[in-house]
Amino acid sequence: MKKLAFGIDIGGINTAFGLVDLEGNIAAESKISTKAYPKFSDYPKYVEALGVAMQSLLKEVKDEVELVGIGIGAPNANYYCGIIDRPVNLWKYTGEEESQDELNRVFDLVKDLGEYFPNVPIYITNDANAATIGEMVYGAAKGMKDFFMITLGTGVGSGFVSNGEMIYGHDGFAGEFGHVTVERNGRMCGCGKKGCLEAYASAIGIKRTAFELMASMPDASPLRDISYNELDSAMLSEAADKGDPIALEAFRLTGQRLGYAIADAAVITSPEAVFIFGGLAKAGEKLFKHIRYYMEEAILVTYKNKIKILPSGLQDKNVAILGGAALVWQKI
Amino acid sequence: MKKLAFGIDIGGINTAFGLVDLEGNIAAESKISTKAYPKFSDYPKYVEALGVAMQSLLKEVKDEVELVGIGIGAPNANYYCGIIDRPVNLWKYTGEEESQDELNRVFDLVKDLGEYFPNVPIYITNDANAATIGEMVYGAAKGMKDFFMITLGTGVGSGFVSNGEMIYGHDGFAGEFGHVTVERNGRMCGCGKKGCLEAYASAIGIKRTAFELMASMPDASPLRDISYNELDSAMLSEAADKGDPIALEAFRLTGQRLGYAIADAAVITSPEAVFIFGGLAKAGEKLFKHIRYYMEEAILVTYKNKIKILPSGLQDKNVAILGGAALVWQKI
Repeated sequence: MKKLAFGIDIGGINTAFGLVDLEGNIAAESKISTKAYPKFSDYPKYVEALGVAMQSLLKEVKDEVELVGIGIGAPNANYYCGIIDRPVNLWKYTGEEESQDELNRVFDLVKDLGEYFPNVPIYITNDANAATIGEMVYGAAKGMKDFFMITLGTGVGSGFVSNGEMIYGHDGFAGEFGHVTVERNGRMCGCGKKGCLEAYASAIGIKRTAFELMASMPDASPLRDISYNELDSAMLSEAADKGDPIALEAFRLTGQRLGYAIADAAVITSPEAVFIFGGLAKAGEKLFKHIRYYMEEAILVTYKNKIKILPSGLQDKNVAILGGAALVWQKI
Repeated sequence: MKKLAFGIDIGGINTAFGLVDLEGNIAAESKISTKAYPKFSDYPKYVEALGVAMQSLLKEVKDEVELVGIGIGAPNANYYCGIIDRPVNLWKYTGEEESQDELNRVFDLVKDLGEYFPNVPIYITNDANAATIGEMVYGAAKGMKDFFMITLGTGVGSGFVSNGEMIYGHDGFAGEFGHVTVERNGRMCGCGKKGCLEAYASAIGIKRTAFELMASMPDASPLRDISYNELDSAMLSEAADKGDPIALEAFRLTGQRLGYAIADAAVITSPEAVFIFGGLAKAGEKLFKHIRYYMEEAILVTYKNKIKILPSGLQDKNVAILGGAALVWQKI
């Protein structure tokens, strides 16, 4: 009997899931569209689609399988109470509902998915925490007891590990590093606050910086031919590789914000390493070198030259599926 | 046989120590002067004075005592390796030593004090961590698993607890919250950096703020008759109670810096409560109300109206002695 755990990664576009063994090998994987179920009232249909698709993936595995558990990484998910709490991009009100109270936009996915998998333990945590656990169990953080991970995607997520344990905090919502204030009264952030790290260091944040630089710098640049909606962080990365001064400066400023913010977080948790993950992290050294430089510039002397800034060890794998599964394997 | 633990609090002026039982009752206490041993070369004499004074306190206790351990809270102490690493105010070079390499100004107090107490386990941690453990074991944080403590004294110290455990970090030096940057290129801090929280929110920080305000505000105030060296935070607290506009504004600005910094720390650890301790914390609500207000203003919506800002439950007791002893009792 082959023991496998489901790892599920709920993103705004797709929900990817896979069956993972204790060593982190993915025996089978599949996905459904999340985007096809955008409305609040679509949620039950989404759960059904996911449950059915998972059951059929289970049947595809040739060996006889013991499903040891299901681990889910999802935006705004709470480890303690199993719910997804007012996710920004999922299952939104359309205006047709009787109530539009945001406090009701809470989804008990652990319970609801449990109806398709009776007696199987189900765990959930936010997507960045799942990635962090994946890194700890299967990736470059293996054996580390004190580190944190920053995910640079559409937003900025994070997971903090101390004494070898995830920091979930009192309410299960710890690790929202994207929302430290890096500029008092700075850029508007999606969360409603101003000046959050996410507004500067996410894939969208660096684009906002590039557009600010087009206004403040005189240099010619092919970027000036691209509209805001067209430009993405991969284009900025390519432009920087060709020496584009605006793109290079955008990476420097993004690394500076991250380096300074990491220096401040380090006095709290004193990590061995900080892992940088996600779409924007693919830019690699042209971002990382600035993070290191500004972190060292701003950090308390006690921590100088001690903290490693590293890429994820799971760049090419589906770390979120692995992280979800790791959440299960950690428990048993 | 009465089981007791020594708790030791090493301050810049005095070293206080006491014998504490499991319930936090202090059976006997005493102190020696730290200030009498200011030089690097005084350190061995200091250890001798401390060891001898502790031995004689032990003899004073009438019951037969089993000494279960010794717990020390000291500036710049490292929990993992037992040393005190380049303390700012202790055992300094005078210029007469052959070497003045700061890297050698490291004191292995666990080993050295151990010569007076063979076979007794000795633990050390930094003073703010010791106070935090005292709060957790004997104070208002009893039963809390996620909280942190900020000590507002000459400097700003802190201790973070997550999942019921102290966060020591990879190197044992975690929890230096006084050195988060609250103002880029701001005031010079004692650590050599600029703009640290400590330069604004310590007893000296609020004095610096008051002097800045004397320059920027036109209001008459009796504070204008007091020199910088004479003024202390207790005077500012009294002046604020009498409605002095400069003192009131100094407390508001200090609470603002603390509130904003706590809002940023909260996204990392999501605490149930934050305890404010130390000399400046005695100002009470006239500081606390501003901390709460600005924390709520700046905090991510996820944590709004969840985090308690509280005074220590051990205000009138020697929390550092209790904290040192708690370090021992936690272990056994």
